[in-house]
Amino acid sequence: MAKEEYAIGLDLGGTKILAGLVDRTGRLIARKQLPTYAEEGEKAVIERVLSATHDVLSASGIHSEEVRGVGIASAGVINSDSGEVIFASNLGWRNVPIGTLIEQRFGLPVRLFNDANAAAIAEWLWGAGAGTQNMIYVTVSTGVGAGVISDGRLISGRDGSAGEFGHISIDWNGPPCGCGNRGCLENYASGTAIENAARHKLATTNEPVTAKAISEAALAGDPFSKRLIKQAGFYLGVGAANLIYLFNPEVIVFGGGVMNASTILMPEIEKSMRERCIPGLAQEVRVILSQIGVEAGVMGAAGGVFALDQPGEKASNF
Amino acid sequence: MAKEEYAIGLDLGGTKILAGLVDRTGRLIARKQLPTYAEEGEKAVIERVLSATHDVLSASGIHSEEVRGVGIASAGVINSDSGEVIFASNLGWRNVPIGTLIEQRFGLPVRLFNDANAAAIAEWLWGAGAGTQNMIYVTVSTGVGAGVISDGRLISGRDGSAGEFGHISIDWNGPPCGCGNRGCLENYASGTAIENAARHKLATTNEPVTAKAISEAALAGDPFSKRLIKQAGFYLGVGAANLIYLFNPEVIVFGGGVMNASTILMPEIEKSMRERCIPGLAQEVRVILSQIGVEAGVMGAAGGVFALDQPGEKASNF
Repeated sequence: MAKEEYAIGLDLGGTKILAGLVDRTGRLIARKQLPTYAEEGEKAVIERVLSATHDVLSASGIHSEEVRGVGIASAGVINSDSGEVIFASNLGWRNVPIGTLIEQRFGLPVRLFNDANAAAIAEWLWGAGAGTQNMIYVTVSTGVGAGVISDGRLISGRDGSAGEFGHISIDWNGPPCGCGNRGCLENYASGTAIENAARHKLATTNEPVTAKAISEAALAGDPFSKRLIKQAGFYLGVGAANLIYLFNPEVIVFGGGVMNASTILMPEIEKSMRERCIPGLAQEVRVILSQIGVEAGVMGAAGGVFALDQPGEKASNF
Repeated sequence: MAKEEYAIGLDLGGTKILAGLVDRTGRLIARKQLPTYAEEGEKAVIERVLSATHDVLSASGIHSEEVRGVGIASAGVINSDSGEVIFASNLGWRNVPIGTLIEQRFGLPVRLFNDANAAAIAEWLWGAGAGTQNMIYVTVSTGVGAGVISDGRLISGRDGSAGEFGHISIDWNGPPCGCGNRGCLENYASGTAIENAARHKLATTNEPVTAKAISEAALAGDPFSKRLIKQAGFYLGVGAANLIYLFNPEVIVFGGGVMNASTILMPEIEKSMRERCIPGLAQEVRVILSQIGVEAGVMGAAGGVFALDQPGEKASNF
């Protein structure tokens, strides 16, 4: 039927709010972007989210009856059942019932996703993981996160916050992390970790060091920067081996800003990952780069909506 | 319909082969146990598996048309799609197509499960995890393993070997493990690990030290043994925190022989687990003891069969 062939995806980021209208085949029919301006406070940001949703719908020319629902991708801690963003530091939000607000305004069912989970859905439906049943998407940017597709369904857990890959401990006695754990992977292998490692070794300089600059220097051949990136790749491989033992995937997709240095990172990831796994388990696991760019959050949140069995009901496919 | 209200569960262990006929409500209608005698070779063991299957069916008085299928729980590496036991050191098996053999002999569809996954299904359907949608079963015996139920389905992965919890690294630079990884959890927190730690500290003695004896001494108040058990509990908590970050479960169920010392282990597990998690994620996670005993493998393998949509088809519920 022609009805409900579309879904709206919303990506709530710290710098921009991105809304997209997506069809079942993964075509982005319309998009609308607004700045977040989190410093203006919760109410103003919510208003801009509602406005972006409205705008993308009218820009598309699609009637809301043809829209199956709204998927929201948000960083931070969410509760997918209640539709609340529990805590998102980049938005300055605490317990914001954004799901209910959108449902009331537009009369459409809403589903919330952790941002890495949304990107995982996008890669699985229409990107690097298309055609697989067991895929893990790992995002490496400021932090490290993951979304896991197992037997063709997103692993969301009790309240949608499964896949917090950045906070698994790869050293029980490692440095303490803000989350309470020690030796968290993202303290070894994120953009932030790369910056900290650089600062630590360049203690004499006062210049700001960014992961982006280090990546670029590494790609240009700078040995010091290259070593930092390789080190991050090594640790990502350690983490990836843990994922293989727990999830037995077909493919691991790596994305996120830090993967700009993929030509240096990927061989290191593969090397430490494969060394650390029983051959039978790892040899058939493909390790590949993400294919969907900045729209992964929007696309995946919308894609997640299509998997809802009935609008308003709990998904059985995801 | 009365048809297909039963399933057969087979537990292929290193010392015994256990067959059970189980109904939909989790009642064990009949059971048959045979010694494994792995040293007699593959062919003899297969013959005993077939014979136990035959015997439990005839002992029950149930007609095979009322049996939905046969579930097999096996240690080692399995391929659930091909129905093969790829490698099981306790049985002395390599690439044994036990699934096909049983299918041919009895004309019933067969599904293979890793033994920890089978026990997880049993605890989830009829034991400590009943009523939950997101449960992790952890077995602590000679090694450490796990089975994960997420959104009401078993996470089996590409070929049914998901949940290899014992081989996640909790120290990337830790001691090497036979699997290829370093710092594997089961080298810190299994029965074997407890025995090794005891031997290490009791280097002067030549007496055999078993995890069972250490557990019993600990329960009787021996401070040295107690310290060893507590240490294992600490590391299990480290691992459990990783599980919480990745799977966002409602409950973690601990079982296996080493959990005989649960009064000492459980507080230690909970302590290090909760300390290491974001409060919002860990505070609602219940940590409890397994309820189903030695029949967990048989019960879970049979329970897994009930989740098959159509005999012979790939499961959609698991």
